[in-house]
Amino acid sequence: MPEYPTALGAASKDEITLLGHSLANDVMGEVGFGELAFWLATQRRPTPGETRVFEAVLAALADHGYTPTAIISRLSYLSAPDSVQGALAAGLLAGGSRFLGVTEDCGRFLHDVLVAQEQLPTDDAGWDDLARATVQTQREAKKFVPGLGHHVHKDGDPRTPRLMAIAAEEGVTGPHLALFAAIGRVHPEILGKTLPLNGAGVCGAALADLGLPLELLRAFALLARTAGLIGQLAEELRHPVANDIFLSVDLNNRPVDPDPYVPESF
Amino acid sequence: MPEYPTALGAASKDEITLLGHSLANDVMGEVGFGELAFWLATQRRPTPGETRVFEAVLAALADHGYTPTAIISRLSYLSAPDSVQGALAAGLLAGGSRFLGVTEDCGRFLHDVLVAQEQLPTDDAGWDDLARATVQTQREAKKFVPGLGHHVHKDGDPRTPRLMAIAAEEGVTGPHLALFAAIGRVHPEILGKTLPLNGAGVCGAALADLGLPLELLRAFALLARTAGLIGQLAEELRHPVANDIFLSVDLNNRPVDPDPYVPESF
Amino acid sequence: MPEYPTALGAASKDEITLLGHSLANDVMGEVGFGELAFWLATQRRPTPGETRVFEAVLAALADHGYTPTAIISRLSYLSAPDSVQGALAAGLLAGGSRFLGVTEDCGRFLHDVLVAQEQLPTDDAGWDDLARATVQTQREAKKFVPGLGHHVHKDGDPRTPRLMAIAAEEGVTGPHLALFAAIGRVHPEILGKTLPLNGAGVCGAALADLGLPLELLRAFALLARTAGLIGQLAEELRHPVANDIFLSVDLNNRPVDPDPYVPESF
Amino acid sequence: MPEYPTALGAASKDEITLLGHSLANDVMGEVGFGELAFWLATQRRPTPGETRVFEAVLAALADHGYTPTAIISRLSYLSAPDSVQGALAAGLLAGGSRFLGVTEDCGRFLHDVLVAQEQLPTDDAGWDDLARATVQTQREAKKFVPGLGHHVHKDGDPRTPRLMAIAAEEGVTGPHLALFAAIGRVHPEILGKTLPLNGAGVCGAALADLGLPLELLRAFALLARTAGLIGQLAEELRHPVANDIFLSVDLNNRPVDPDPYVPESF
Repeated sequence: MPEYPTALGAASKDEITLLGHSLANDVMGEVGFGELAFWLATQRRPTPGETRVFEAVLAALADHGYTPTAIISRLSYLSAPDSVQGALAAGLLAGGSRFLGVTEDCGRFLHDVLVAQEQLPTDDAGWDDLARATVQTQREAKKFVPGLGHHVHKDGDPRTPRLMAIAAEEGVTGPHLALFAAIGRVHPEILGKTLPLNGAGVCGAALADLGLPLELLRAFALLARTAGLIGQLAEELRHPVANDIFLSVDLNNRPVDPDPYVPESF
Repeated sequence: MPEYPTALGAASKDEITLLGHSLANDVMGEVGFGELAFWLATQRRPTPGETRVFEAVLAALADHGYTPTAIISRLSYLSAPDSVQGALAAGLLAGGSRFLGVTEDCGRFLHDVLVAQEQLPTDDAGWDDLARATVQTQREAKKFVPGLGHHVHKDGDPRTPRLMAIAAEEGVTGPHLALFAAIGRVHPEILGKTLPLNGAGVCGAALADLGLPLELLRAFALLARTAGLIGQLAEELRHPVANDIFLSVDLNNRPVDPDPYVPESF
Repeated sequence: MPEYPTALGAASKDEITLLGHSLANDVMGEVGFGELAFWLATQRRPTPGETRVFEAVLAALADHGYTPTAIISRLSYLSAPDSVQGALAAGLLAGGSRFLGVTEDCGRFLHDVLVAQEQLPTDDAGWDDLARATVQTQREAKKFVPGLGHHVHKDGDPRTPRLMAIAAEEGVTGPHLALFAAIGRVHPEILGKTLPLNGAGVCGAALADLGLPLELLRAFALLARTAGLIGQLAEELRHPVANDIFLSVDLNNRPVDPDPYVPESF
Repeated sequence: MPEYPTALGAASKDEITLLGHSLANDVMGEVGFGELAFWLATQRRPTPGETRVFEAVLAALADHGYTPTAIISRLSYLSAPDSVQGALAAGLLAGGSRFLGVTEDCGRFLHDVLVAQEQLPTDDAGWDDLARATVQTQREAKKFVPGLGHHVHKDGDPRTPRLMAIAAEEGVTGPHLALFAAIGRVHPEILGKTLPLNGAGVCGAALADLGLPLELLRAFALLARTAGLIGQLAEELRHPVANDIFLSVDLNNRPVDPDPYVPESF
């Protein structure tokens, strides 16, 4: 019979433990929710400074207004009000590569650059050199630098300097943020134009500096968004818009003739 | 052209706001994640005491080990490792009536009893009377009292007294918790046996006392569980069990003859 | 060690069976997809007539244009093009009580009426009497009759007579369709207005008459819709509208002040 | 005001059309479900031969017993019996790269080889040459050939010759199946061992030969699986195993100490 080890939740008749601690006595009332999420993901309790940076990231990613995730959750709740879990799940499913993926892409990108170095830079000049080489390499490969650019905040994304400042205050700036900041300083030399370091990107850099698993960076964006989607559903309950959205599409449908699909020929 | 009002996230070229506040300056680094989730759901900022109770509830519900939600997320991640959002969404979809529903059911049940009273009790004796009538009514209707009983913690669920104590410390005990506690005191008189007040139930009572929307009580359990599922996936990445679970079922399949379905006849 | 019996798919080194038949020799190329879906759900092979009615139901429910399910799948695909499974799943999650639920509700409603009869009517006059009593009972309880009424097809839903005709041609009209048809005939006497029997309702009646499990009537609507959603995604790939839908909402957002939630007071 | 063109479902007061045809008169009762799914995806009506091959593919992929998709749907239904749509969606979410992805991977792989040729082979010898070069290239890149190999059917997957035979009977064998068959013939020369052409792979080749969009090959596997999952839920309703699966994991949990995550150091 296989056994299934876990360090997470466990229960006996008189006790419930989480991560080896008494849930009732040591966790409830003692551990904030952001702190707990970090602890569950890493099986180590974060410092207060790490928690503050982590929660700042979650705040930055929680809600961006009428994104596809928000529209989808509201429409799903309109259609299936009996299933709150379905409305949240449907919204999260839109948290894929295009809209929530920059956080993960940026964290992984920076990480890949860093692990390829024999030795990391020790001063800003060194980081700038590494950033120049990094941007140059991407440019030559005709690839974007993840986290660079924003379609709205063209003169700067206000989340970026703020998150960097919080990380600095808490003493948890690491190599990912250092490289990301350096990319922000030097890219105009190479690209010939100044682009903002975006909020999703800086969040990825910060999460990587916090030592969170790279495979799950997107998951933290999704955790943040879950709180945001609950906010969307709560607003929908009192100030509904989903039916208007639905009708704005349905009533403006235009029937057209079928356009038979022709596969690529050889 | 329809307009879509929202008090949640909004962005202009130079600013991002959330709930009318500057996201970068007033939220990031200033507002904890549990506090933010409460704020997003109610559009009012909770007090520190409310936040502590709310986060204690989230801690109580975050992870219960190998529940269906956890097993499903791990299996989904095994099958589709390219989609973290799918693994989390699949797990949340199991957060329905049977496993995560008690929180909502208990909050709503208590609420329905309370709104039916002309005046609420003002002392323990009064609450006990109301609780007696409540348990009696359910018994006569051959219905369970939501939140009463637990298949493992038969002598008491350690989360229950702890959450009540935290709520008392923070001065946010309200009528839902008062009635729930009274049900705990008086039900043996009526049912002839002593059952524990379970943790899911007390969480529902506490969330209702915090003034959170009853329609979304399940959503808060799901938010807590999202953090737990990230923990499950993080553990699965390093100490995988999903393939063993899959094989323990698949290799123990037993082919049987079809059993044609015969609908109820008239 | 538990064993897990199943009559569905099984495989050994040299053979794959499905429902006790050789998948390669007896199913592939021999059994149509609608027929197979019926067979999988009931573990009995349907007759050609049953298959034709079943496939007519699936055709009736496959796609209704820009429903929430379709809008959601397209938006999800826009956001997470890496996850076709997520786009389909998100769309299906909107197949809940409000938009796809009528099929199930109507089938169950008719069934509940039928099982409460000591003996079923044997002629149209008898069905009309039962239908009169049924509509009257609903009216007195201030409840709708599921399947009656349509917001667009006010003079009649073209699917309804067609499905009834197909069922009659194939000799598989049963008591659910008989009662539903009678409701169509007599309800004006009681309600004082003529409402159409809608397509979702007649599909529920037909599925129930086919002897399919009532608990899964919604599932067949979802199967049909899966084919429809693939059509939506295929069209989105070549003639995209999801980004326009997203922007039509996002660009017409109107920031408003928070509206703090005030729970019902006691 | 944007307009949203679609050739799929449309409705006016008296008519419902699908793909430009009267749903009631021309589709219901006239078009099988597999045929309709093909038509919806391509906006062209398939020939009877194409439909037969397409339905054979769907049959081949509908159910493989206790796969993760099946286990997940059953567990989700156990937890949230109120949400059939959630149980189906959760199961489909496991239809990702690892368990249902071979169909898509194989179709795309073959396609990529074919489009890179100036001219396609015209006889078996020519296909064998192309297959040799293809297998050699993969081997040198230390990559697998999608669709080659099976962990159970080591001496041959019975679905593969059967699907090839059906395609040949119907005269719809195209270059994808031709190349796939040639890979089956020549790979032992290069790899030094004989591997079976698996069923998922041949399905991908056949779907590509049918001219279906490569981006959606996985979607057809998911459509097939939706029928299979309904079968799983129908069996679960009458012969439940989900609770046993859940308990077999939960009761065999083994609490272990937390293992703090240490990120890769630089």
